[in-house]
Amino acid sequence: MQIELINTGSVLMLGRVLNTHQQWLCRQLADLGYVVTRQIGVSDDAGPMLDVVRESLTRADLIITTGGLGPTSDDCTRDLIAGMLGVKLVRHDEVLSRITEFFTSRKRLMPESTKVQALVPAGALVLLNAHGTAPGLVMEVPAGKFRSKATLLIMLPGPPRELRPMFTNQIVPLLKEKLPLETEFICRTLKTTGLGESRVEEMIAPKLKHLTDRGLELGYCARTGEVDVRFVARGCGAQQTVAEAECILRVAIGDNVFGVDDEQLETVIVRLLTEQKQTLALAESCTSGFIANRITNVPGASSVLWGGVVSYANEAKMKFLGVQQSTLAAHGAVSEETAREMAEGARRVSGADFALSATGIAGPDGGTAEKPVGTVFIGFASAEKSRAYKFFNRFDRETFKYVTSQQALEILRRALL
Amino acid sequence: MQIELINTGSVLMLGRVLNTHQQWLCRQLADLGYVVTRQIGVSDDAGPMLDVVRESLTRADLIITTGGLGPTSDDCTRDLIAGMLGVKLVRHDEVLSRITEFFTSRKRLMPESTKVQALVPAGALVLLNAHGTAPGLVMEVPAGKFRSKATLLIMLPGPPRELRPMFTNQIVPLLKEKLPLETEFICRTLKTTGLGESRVEEMIAPKLKHLTDRGLELGYCARTGEVDVRFVARGCGAQQTVAEAECILRVAIGDNVFGVDDEQLETVIVRLLTEQKQTLALAESCTSGFIANRITNVPGASSVLWGGVVSYANEAKMKFLGVQQSTLAAHGAVSEETAREMAEGARRVSGADFALSATGIAGPDGGTAEKPVGTVFIGFASAEKSRAYKFFNRFDRETFKYVTSQQALEILRRALL
Repeated sequence: MQIELINTGSVLMLGRVLNTHQQWLCRQLADLGYVVTRQIGVSDDAGPMLDVVRESLTRADLIITTGGLGPTSDDCTRDLIAGMLGVKLVRHDEVLSRITEFFTSRKRLMPESTKVQALVPAGALVLLNAHGTAPGLVMEVPAGKFRSKATLLIMLPGPPRELRPMFTNQIVPLLKEKLPLETEFICRTLKTTGLGESRVEEMIAPKLKHLTDRGLELGYCARTGEVDVRFVARGCGAQQTVAEAECILRVAIGDNVFGVDDEQLETVIVRLLTEQKQTLALAESCTSGFIANRITNVPGASSVLWGGVVSYANEAKMKFLGVQQSTLAAHGAVSEETAREMAEGARRVSGADFALSATGIAGPDGGTAEKPVGTVFIGFASAEKSRAYKFFNRFDRETFKYVTSQQALEILRRALL
Repeated sequence: MQIELINTGSVLMLGRVLNTHQQWLCRQLADLGYVVTRQIGVSDDAGPMLDVVRESLTRADLIITTGGLGPTSDDCTRDLIAGMLGVKLVRHDEVLSRITEFFTSRKRLMPESTKVQALVPAGALVLLNAHGTAPGLVMEVPAGKFRSKATLLIMLPGPPRELRPMFTNQIVPLLKEKLPLETEFICRTLKTTGLGESRVEEMIAPKLKHLTDRGLELGYCARTGEVDVRFVARGCGAQQTVAEAECILRVAIGDNVFGVDDEQLETVIVRLLTEQKQTLALAESCTSGFIANRITNVPGASSVLWGGVVSYANEAKMKFLGVQQSTLAAHGAVSEETAREMAEGARRVSGADFALSATGIAGPDGGTAEKPVGTVFIGFASAEKSRAYKFFNRFDRETFKYVTSQQALEILRRALL
């Protein structure tokens, strides 16, 4: 099945906004067994956009477009596609009354231009928008018009919080009805840490050969401090094949596997702490809340995370965590000793079972010859021990925080194994 | 000029990874005046990938591909494109010696498969990779082969921290030399808050008509709690046109404009606090470090952010911030009174000029009839006053934190105007 995703918007082509639709929709579709064969980004100018849609219509069984259904002058997807297909736009009364209500209920004036969203291509299936004003639209382009088979053409609004529930609640049932799948499809990702991409392949590929020979697809993705291994299998026995491949990988790589699929290190940490009925406190200087933020992205975090301190100023390190002035004076805020005292202090003040701390120089300024930008100390405290680990993370500020948080969480994960 | 960006990787089509290359490269290119006309995502399977590259070669002056240059079995971009163009792969000695050194200097064994990265298409310009092992490759596809004009074909490695410096340091000078631009290009984004998309258009579009008539492009992008207005102008006088448009918008919309281009609310906050020599402390419960994290993404944050507390447990609220047990008992942790005491406590304990606090119910669980999931109180304390504001942010956990942090930062921004 040929499936194409078209993301429209000049804002995309100018790089002013991150296209999150691609991953989200591709992921949702793949989990149902519909693998997108091509994704295209194009401006909302009539010429280029129509070229792209017309070309897709010659190839695809299913086309999903995003964006261009709103009320402003650059929202032209509806008009352009209807025009190209030779279909008139007609007013949809229910949509119009819902738009009116949307503004009334929020006690906001309804700008005249919003009414354009109630115009829909004649004959289109209209998907009401529970979180906004622009409806989604579904058209069936008949066989013989652009290619020998029919094409299902779905237009979704651009804002993620409108598009996502519309996809989940309205598109998924529609796909299952209109384009039923005949074959099983399994995709599973195993996430590893501590090994390079080539090394991972070397360790597993020969052992998986009998499965890849039978059609198992094997993919690798190197990320910062992490290598993902992806198994894809189709058809009868797919589930069994992937289960066997996972088993072989786990035997070969062991503790370096930290999670599966979307599982992040923070998800694993919350799971392990919950299972072991342990709690955590944080003392974050250079990561300044990023570790706490990651952990609290996980539902259920409140039962394992006591809280933490963002001790940016030295005074905060002393006041909240009891770091000694003499330690700061002798070794500096970015030092093994301070990191350890921060972790010990966080554990002491909170009564939590474990504490993690991070202190370092994110840059771009603040480095010295002895402690250049990128220097980080991560402290760890438990009932048994406290220790600090030195790392050198020379990245931009955001990557610096991410990598440091990843190292801190990995130290804790190893302690929980 | 036709510019196409091709992002390869089955991992993209399966939605297992977010494609950040699209925004980053489109943005870098647009800032130089090169606007990408089409972006395509495709798997690394030979058939679909070659179809896409072949089609792009019939249209584009410049093609940039990302991914598929690494050492594993699914990295086939180099081989496939060389094969299609009828060019042999030859060993590049400098690349090989750098790969060897990469492993030696890290004291890691060099897997045999990494050597494949030293094979390059004969005649290609080789871009050495300062942060990894796979080189970038540049080929000039001569006129007459796929279309009447020549095409510059650039292949970049997939990992962002390899691709980005390679683009900045090696591709930018190459583009300026090989594809010089003749016309001026200006793109500027004005970021607004507090008004809907249609309302913004209603307030500015009529006043900008004389400029749009003269070719100014006007675009809108509605985001969570924010509407971006984008001005694009080309050719002689572009700078002047955009400056005039910005002036008109600022008069019409006033304080609702909070930033330009990539300026985030946190950037504005750090700038305003720095200018006014004021400091900030945070008491985060439901946002749990997310506000601190945003602020410390901005270089220079350390001179305005004292620090903060992630007070997830009630005990943390009392111990660090002096929130009264009686307040928690009478009104609960998620209440106006607690939010105010948290902000006051953070300000008192830190001696900072301002404090912000947030306490709420992120969900999915924890809501009650009186305080459903999504309920948030944001506290603000200054020398003059302390106050709490109630919001209702019914989203997934990550969006909940983002929206809450946006509201908190906006309260502070208004106080700093």
